[in-house]
Amino acid sequence: MAQNNYKNQPYDSVNPSYKQKRGKLKGADEYVEGIRSGNRAILSMAITVVESSRESHQKIAREIIRQCLPFSGNSVRIGITGVPGVGKSTFIEAIGKKLIEDEKKLAVLTVDPSSTLTKGSILGDKTRMPLLSTNENAFIRPSPTSGSLGGVARKTRETIILCEAAGYDAIFIETVGVGQSETTVKSMVDLFLLLMLAGAGDELQGIKRGIMEMADILAINKADGENIQQAKQAKLEYENGLSLLPPTPSGRRATVHICSALRDTGISEIRKEMNQYIEDTKKSGYFDANRENQAAYWLHQTVEDQLKQQFYNHPEIKKVLTVKEAEVKKGTVSPFAAAQELLRLAQTNPNH
Amino acid sequence: MAQNNYKNQPYDSVNPSYKQKRGKLKGADEYVEGIRSGNRAILSMAITVVESSRESHQKIAREIIRQCLPFSGNSVRIGITGVPGVGKSTFIEAIGKKLIEDEKKLAVLTVDPSSTLTKGSILGDKTRMPLLSTNENAFIRPSPTSGSLGGVARKTRETIILCEAAGYDAIFIETVGVGQSETTVKSMVDLFLLLMLAGAGDELQGIKRGIMEMADILAINKADGENIQQAKQAKLEYENGLSLLPPTPSGRRATVHICSALRDTGISEIRKEMNQYIEDTKKSGYFDANRENQAAYWLHQTVEDQLKQQFYNHPEIKKVLTVKEAEVKKGTVSPFAAAQELLRLAQTNPNH
Repeated sequence: MAQNNYKNQPYDSVNPSYKQKRGKLKGADEYVEGIRSGNRAILSMAITVVESSRESHQKIAREIIRQCLPFSGNSVRIGITGVPGVGKSTFIEAIGKKLIEDEKKLAVLTVDPSSTLTKGSILGDKTRMPLLSTNENAFIRPSPTSGSLGGVARKTRETIILCEAAGYDAIFIETVGVGQSETTVKSMVDLFLLLMLAGAGDELQGIKRGIMEMADILAINKADGENIQQAKQAKLEYENGLSLLPPTPSGRRATVHICSALRDTGISEIRKEMNQYIEDTKKSGYFDANRENQAAYWLHQTVEDQLKQQFYNHPEIKKVLTVKEAEVKKGTVSPFAAAQELLRLAQTNPNH
Repeated sequence: MAQNNYKNQPYDSVNPSYKQKRGKLKGADEYVEGIRSGNRAILSMAITVVESSRESHQKIAREIIRQCLPFSGNSVRIGITGVPGVGKSTFIEAIGKKLIEDEKKLAVLTVDPSSTLTKGSILGDKTRMPLLSTNENAFIRPSPTSGSLGGVARKTRETIILCEAAGYDAIFIETVGVGQSETTVKSMVDLFLLLMLAGAGDELQGIKRGIMEMADILAINKADGENIQQAKQAKLEYENGLSLLPPTPSGRRATVHICSALRDTGISEIRKEMNQYIEDTKKSGYFDANRENQAAYWLHQTVEDQLKQQFYNHPEIKKVLTVKEAEVKKGTVSPFAAAQELLRLAQTNPNH
């Protein structure tokens, strides 16, 4: 088993049966066929193609996605976030186990814009989710290891499409690290779950308010042993805090739960609440409306990211940008005049 | 008196002495000379030129700003926000009066992205700040009445430069309406002041948490008569809430004050705190660093706004955008594929 998480390894080291096929699996059709048949090795290879920045790969990737698109959209997409040490992996293992027991297929994707620096998360993912990483109905895929947050987001969203076409019922999108990536994840999921700890009176610290406002479900983890009382207290405090906030755009108030992923307490209740959330939002029409808005958002986001990238990668701009920035900071040129100058420069030399 | 706030009126209706000059005041030099001499009518005309979207005006505007830039930067820029009904005008009148008594010159600019819809704020500004609007050391200028928030922001920032060149010591930038414009105002001021009311137990409602986190100084207004106790209580609660937040980027913790702009109580203390804030941040180096970062921010912001504008105003894009959006929402095309298509379309037809 453990056929996942090998994106940086040569394909044939993963699954010997693909050794002879190596070099042959080139057409998008073959990828799509493999994905649709539930072959995790091919799914993983297809994701690698999607993540590649080589133009030849990108061309195949576009075709793979085009063909997968009609089979996508049928999963429940759940974002899971929380500060390091909150027990995200253990939580995902615990709730994932229940999904698999109910014969659901689960894909876990991570979004980590900092992974460019850390690397090595491949081994990490295997170690930290031993159960899921050896179960054939689970698929774990670490974050693309390069690119801007925008790039990582695009790749993750396209990976969702592939996983859905492969028949995964639930897709967990886990943020690693705190702060930047939550908004991005929020914009690609149906439900956003925030994991927390019951601290010593500092319930509101560490977590940016904005993130709490984004959450559809809050779960206070590690509510076991001596922590139970504190967790119950924290639950009340969070419920209080949330009652002061306006309801989330779904029209549904966020709920607070306590659990111990390690001891498997409270996990079933959270899963039940997740299902209830999906049921309620599907009934109200929010579920579909949200997905439509997300799609439109990503259309605009991609356009705008690309426009910026083209501009900042323009050789003429690269040459003068820091000089202009320095002038603007010194106050010798107004930011607006400098911007006009740069825009003219990029437009009169469009050959890049 | 009351020579300000006449941007939609013909120039000669404002100050008869400019009647004969009408049509002559065309060169940037003349504007700059008038601005530098402290002529409020010419300052106001120059701002109108800056706000104009006509290319001929824009050309003069750029030159005016270029010439004013060396004389800019010497004011203290203060952002003032708060929900409607909190008493922003009365507060600005009360604190403005003290500035003027100390022989300071004060400019009040408003940022109101919604003013496109409401118009009519011209009369409004005169009525709501009777003292300042008739004082020769005060200059009140309503928000540009058209354009996107980005456009309004650019115009406001350029207006700041003109006001500084005209010798104004303090520039208040007041947000009208809540929600969108605070971040924009925050990015152009040295100090951000949030006005609040002591409600009935709902201290935290109405104001987005994010806005509270942006504030350098919080003032609870209308602390008079029966409200005093409630205001004092609210002060404690806000101080409590703020103690849970990380310090602002200035390294200084936000302070909470109570005042009654109407009765002129607490206003001097707030002014003192403002001065202290400026002194502290100048000493720590944050004041200058913040302004430099703001300038660089506006350089990038302008570039990115313009890139978007050019794209979305492209005739080919205008033709197909809604169709593509609909396809993406329906899920027949991936947002990324649609984006690529649109970008190609804009690039292969650059004649716009």
